[in-house]
Amino acid sequence: MKNIQNEVMSWVQRSTDQHLCLAVTGLSRSGKTAFITSLVNQLLAVNQGARLPLFTPVREGRVIGVKRVPQRDLATPSFNYDRGLEQLYEHPACWPTPTKGVGKIELVIRYRTDRLLMRHLKETSSLRLEIIDYPGEWLLDLPMLGQSYAQWSMQMNSLLNAQRKEWAQAWQDACADLNAESLADEQRLADIAQRWTDYLHRCKDEGYHFIQPGRFILPGEMAGAPALQFFPWPFSTVENQHQNLDKNTTFATLERRYNFYCQHVVKKFYKEYFLKFDRQIVLVDCLQPLNSGVNAFNDMRLALTQLMQSFHYGQRSLFRRLFSPVIDKLLFAATKADHVTSDQHANMVALLRQMTQAAWKNAAFEGVKIDCIALSAIQATCPGVMAYQQQQVPALRGRRLPDYQPVTLYPGEVPAQLPNPSFWLQQGFAFENFTPLEMNADEPLPHLRMDNALDFLLGDKLL
Amino acid sequence: MKNIQNEVMSWVQRSTDQHLCLAVTGLSRSGKTAFITSLVNQLLAVNQGARLPLFTPVREGRVIGVKRVPQRDLATPSFNYDRGLEQLYEHPACWPTPTKGVGKIELVIRYRTDRLLMRHLKETSSLRLEIIDYPGEWLLDLPMLGQSYAQWSMQMNSLLNAQRKEWAQAWQDACADLNAESLADEQRLADIAQRWTDYLHRCKDEGYHFIQPGRFILPGEMAGAPALQFFPWPFSTVENQHQNLDKNTTFATLERRYNFYCQHVVKKFYKEYFLKFDRQIVLVDCLQPLNSGVNAFNDMRLALTQLMQSFHYGQRSLFRRLFSPVIDKLLFAATKADHVTSDQHANMVALLRQMTQAAWKNAAFEGVKIDCIALSAIQATCPGVMAYQQQQVPALRGRRLPDYQPVTLYPGEVPAQLPNPSFWLQQGFAFENFTPLEMNADEPLPHLRMDNALDFLLGDKLL
Repeated sequence: MKNIQNEVMSWVQRSTDQHLCLAVTGLSRSGKTAFITSLVNQLLAVNQGARLPLFTPVREGRVIGVKRVPQRDLATPSFNYDRGLEQLYEHPACWPTPTKGVGKIELVIRYRTDRLLMRHLKETSSLRLEIIDYPGEWLLDLPMLGQSYAQWSMQMNSLLNAQRKEWAQAWQDACADLNAESLADEQRLADIAQRWTDYLHRCKDEGYHFIQPGRFILPGEMAGAPALQFFPWPFSTVENQHQNLDKNTTFATLERRYNFYCQHVVKKFYKEYFLKFDRQIVLVDCLQPLNSGVNAFNDMRLALTQLMQSFHYGQRSLFRRLFSPVIDKLLFAATKADHVTSDQHANMVALLRQMTQAAWKNAAFEGVKIDCIALSAIQATCPGVMAYQQQQVPALRGRRLPDYQPVTLYPGEVPAQLPNPSFWLQQGFAFENFTPLEMNADEPLPHLRMDNALDFLLGDKLL
Repeated sequence: MKNIQNEVMSWVQRSTDQHLCLAVTGLSRSGKTAFITSLVNQLLAVNQGARLPLFTPVREGRVIGVKRVPQRDLATPSFNYDRGLEQLYEHPACWPTPTKGVGKIELVIRYRTDRLLMRHLKETSSLRLEIIDYPGEWLLDLPMLGQSYAQWSMQMNSLLNAQRKEWAQAWQDACADLNAESLADEQRLADIAQRWTDYLHRCKDEGYHFIQPGRFILPGEMAGAPALQFFPWPFSTVENQHQNLDKNTTFATLERRYNFYCQHVVKKFYKEYFLKFDRQIVLVDCLQPLNSGVNAFNDMRLALTQLMQSFHYGQRSLFRRLFSPVIDKLLFAATKADHVTSDQHANMVALLRQMTQAAWKNAAFEGVKIDCIALSAIQATCPGVMAYQQQQVPALRGRRLPDYQPVTLYPGEVPAQLPNPSFWLQQGFAFENFTPLEMNADEPLPHLRMDNALDFLLGDKLL
């Protein structure tokens, strides 16, 4: 009898000690590193002062403890939690250095189960939480898998308006006398591809987010490989126009490299990483694009629309045709909520919801539970009040970047919906950046609504 | 009849249009980039003034032409020939920027065959030459595949004498109270591994060459991964002493990472690259280690001995046990022959032969044809004469690095055999470094004995 009980116990152990892979991404400067640093910090301090009232298992007092465990995947770089924390605790406090490429960190959460059946069999369960950080730019490439080289070229060329046109001028000049049918000149293609890469870097530096091919700006060990030496065909070209060209011609060479990139770089990321993710949080900084103006703002909307295709699991979606979806929960989080007054948080969420909504319609997200929140992973301001036209209005107190000046200010309103063209003409936005608050190393990092995020992403796994 | 002839022709075409993969390596600063730049330059200029009298197919007038062709392997970075050439043609001329990691460049050599049978069937043949550049440090890791973690640790600790002991002090201090049986502390292991990496960098900066694990100093996309966060066990430990430790202990964690490194980093290089090489040239700079003194010189001998294990194809060799050998010709080249007077070249070759000879004995290199030469890929000096004790002695004229001063000097003698200990006490060496000669972009790069190297490496493939 004892033996049977042991066997049942061991079986239960195996089946309830769960594993969850939580993926964290966002477009560049959206605050991925700060988010993961805070998430790990809150969990590790769960019984030492972390303020997580909305994280159900914590509120119910069922989380026994959380600890870091050695990473099982030895080949992936570790997320450097300790260095980020050190930087935050410096005087003056600094934001953690942003990560490049992929990073991982693993925790085990030990908790008392709430399920009746389980309670009879065992006291506690554990969840092994693998947190993985990767550049959101890599998701922007997914749609390329559904486009031919000619189709992709047309789309890229159609974007070259206004500032993008100006930034792409050097690339266009270099393409001037390119001949589809002439023998490919490797060196020249490398030069022109470099100009396309320069253009992408310029877009990124100016706060634009729709950057393709995403790997061009973070090439890693492929730097200088022919697989990254292509660019959109610069002339308007109809599908099949260059179909029967010899494989050594310029057009065929570019097309071959495009196809190689899709098959061996884009698909590889989805196979090696993305298909192992259980849950995903996408971080979005709405404030910077609002500051940068209508074009940058619309560009971020476009980037988000592209990015969301990786989570469209409807029957006819590109993703479903290529892969088997796994992710069952997807959270969009507007970061830097502490950079606006709390009365603006509802607007922030409403705006983010609208920016991502186009894609939510027609039930594209079958089986994926989605939510939008506004949060601050590491709080950089305190609420305050200031006088404005003889009234006391809500304000923020903090130290401004880059000059570290203490300021009390009202940063302005966040529009609750996509601003219309006339709005952009009337006024702009000027949200400030702040340094982190000076912090006490004994206390968990101050935050806004990290507990909401944790509850959505992990709560149901800790029942 | 015509049809049959065509078929035969096409069959012959396929079977005689050959492919050869030539691998170029060397310890750091041995001149790999200069060598490949010159090799490509000489071949491309084969009928436009290249001085290659000892390259048989050229002397016999059978090389019709050489051209660069697009790289077929799209995923591997291209060797940047054009940039290197630009730097050489600058005023003042600069050495090409050294490459990091792997680089490739492909040429096609069209030639008239010398074989009677072939001559009846077709006029010309072609050889597709794939040149691949990789860090010699990667070959130093091969012997790790034959060592357990404990054995490797003993070997690493045994090297910590004299200067190496001093450079490793910070690492040793950090290891002071390390306990094999305590639970592994990931962060601490990462810190200590960083100190081991710092030690390896110091060795490299000081001109030492035996560096293990080789990938620690060129981690690429694995930077920060647990697979690169191990180090030798710092205490003398007998094999099996820590055999039954729990997998979460410090010792077991380090051992697991060592084994992962061997299986997934070292073996991967051999499988993905090394096994595809047909011929290999290993470049060796003997002059710098002679300048650096007895310890650095002996260290290079040790590194060469380690490195040569990758070419030991005898039945009982480590390589043969793990892989199927392919390389059939191996050339050791002492580079910078132009940095000594020509009467010293024979000594240079004799010295290199001795440094590598220990390993040649007992027929370890079955089926591999080996040779040693001294060469200068890109000549940086001209011969001159100077007065010494009222006699005219041979000298070199060139511009000295780093101050670009024109000098005429007698650089000294190269020992024809391994210097004995008393020799090192009596005198040191002080070979100068030179800038490249000012060059005319219309003319092939000046060199010494590149034609010997080409003849050994390619001559028999162009018959």
